[in-house]
Amino acid sequence: MKAVVILSGGMDSITLLYDVISQGYEVQALSFDYRQRHKKELGCAKATCKVLNVPHKVVSLDVLNDLAPSSLTRDSIEVPEGHYAAPNMKQTVVPNRNMVLISLAASYAISQGISKIYYGAHAGDHAIYPDCRPDFVSKMRDVLKCCDYLPVELEAPYLNITKRDILSIGLKLGVDYSLTWTCYNGRDCACGKCGSCTERLEAFEQNNTKDPIKYEV
Amino acid sequence: MKAVVILSGGMDSITLLYDVISQGYEVQALSFDYRQRHKKELGCAKATCKVLNVPHKVVSLDVLNDLAPSSLTRDSIEVPEGHYAAPNMKQTVVPNRNMVLISLAASYAISQGISKIYYGAHAGDHAIYPDCRPDFVSKMRDVLKCCDYLPVELEAPYLNITKRDILSIGLKLGVDYSLTWTCYNGRDCACGKCGSCTERLEAFEQNNTKDPIKYEV
Repeated sequence: MKAVVILSGGMDSITLLYDVISQGYEVQALSFDYRQRHKKELGCAKATCKVLNVPHKVVSLDVLNDLAPSSLTRDSIEVPEGHYAAPNMKQTVVPNRNMVLISLAASYAISQGISKIYYGAHAGDHAIYPDCRPDFVSKMRDVLKCCDYLPVELEAPYLNITKRDILSIGLKLGVDYSLTWTCYNGRDCACGKCGSCTERLEAFEQNNTKDPIKYEV
Repeated sequence: MKAVVILSGGMDSITLLYDVISQGYEVQALSFDYRQRHKKELGCAKATCKVLNVPHKVVSLDVLNDLAPSSLTRDSIEVPEGHYAAPNMKQTVVPNRNMVLISLAASYAISQGISKIYYGAHAGDHAIYPDCRPDFVSKMRDVLKCCDYLPVELEAPYLNITKRDILSIGLKLGVDYSLTWTCYNGRDCACGKCGSCTERLEAFEQNNTKDPIKYEV
């Protein structure tokens, strides 16, 4: 059994990587460098793949940055602070990002005869990110079945669970969360204030565990 | 009315460009440089946009070349000769290419508040290219409606007509076919032997018109 895992370097996709490996899959990890502000996540993706001895491909996707401005791709657009599900978080949407990433992952998978792709959308994403919602995933699954001679299956096993639940799975799997990056700002330490940090910190608190990474505050 | 037209520089997408403009749309043309062997088509796309005074964006998509080898992206894989619908033409499939291009066109369209994308898939493509078939287009349409806050409409008006019919439309619209490139080989003159040339030459013959471009044979 082989699978491609789309790996951002955040805690969800890194948990997913451990999870898929624990199910016996031979995994190819695929990461995208679209000059995201929080590019630091790619270092975590790389470090984790090294620890797990997983083949890891990082591809340059400047084109997404060029075509789709967002606060995650442009220094001139500020990253909003506050709760992950608040309306101002819409500034962090990179339009249609996940369809772009999944379609490229499918090209890669098909080229290698791999028919399964995993990505880490979760319930906390639904409020703000249309391309993480069940309806989107369901329709991507449909089109991926007919896009090539090889039907591709898209798996999003965390689609209906929260970051707390994902962390709970990861803690059991022994994920090293010091090698994950969640903050939308790509500074030395996590800001602790952006929507993404807020959600991460809540998940650790709800699991009665201390987050091993360093925060500015 | 605004629309993004995915423009390869081939005769189908260039006819489509004229067609969409004639319907009153304000058009943004979008082309992709994935280091295709027949990159010459991009020069035709550029020249036609200049003639029509259409804003034209060409984006570099090396990543597709990197992730999805095919005879159209690798000099080491030969371009097959013969009829466009013959089984050996499968070597010209760039796996999942159209989903990649359409998803990036959607990112671009959404970023500009444009809700319509046109692409030039046609009936002659069905035999070999899964990502030009009605089922694929129908399912892409479904997922594009829910991928973002702005629902995106995908239009493929040539989906069920042949290259002969497309040429017939284009001749009425006054398309300058000397500024279109169809050959899969990117040499000085069209080879006249690859599947793509064969189909083009048939279309001109069926329309009782001479193809204005130069052929090696």
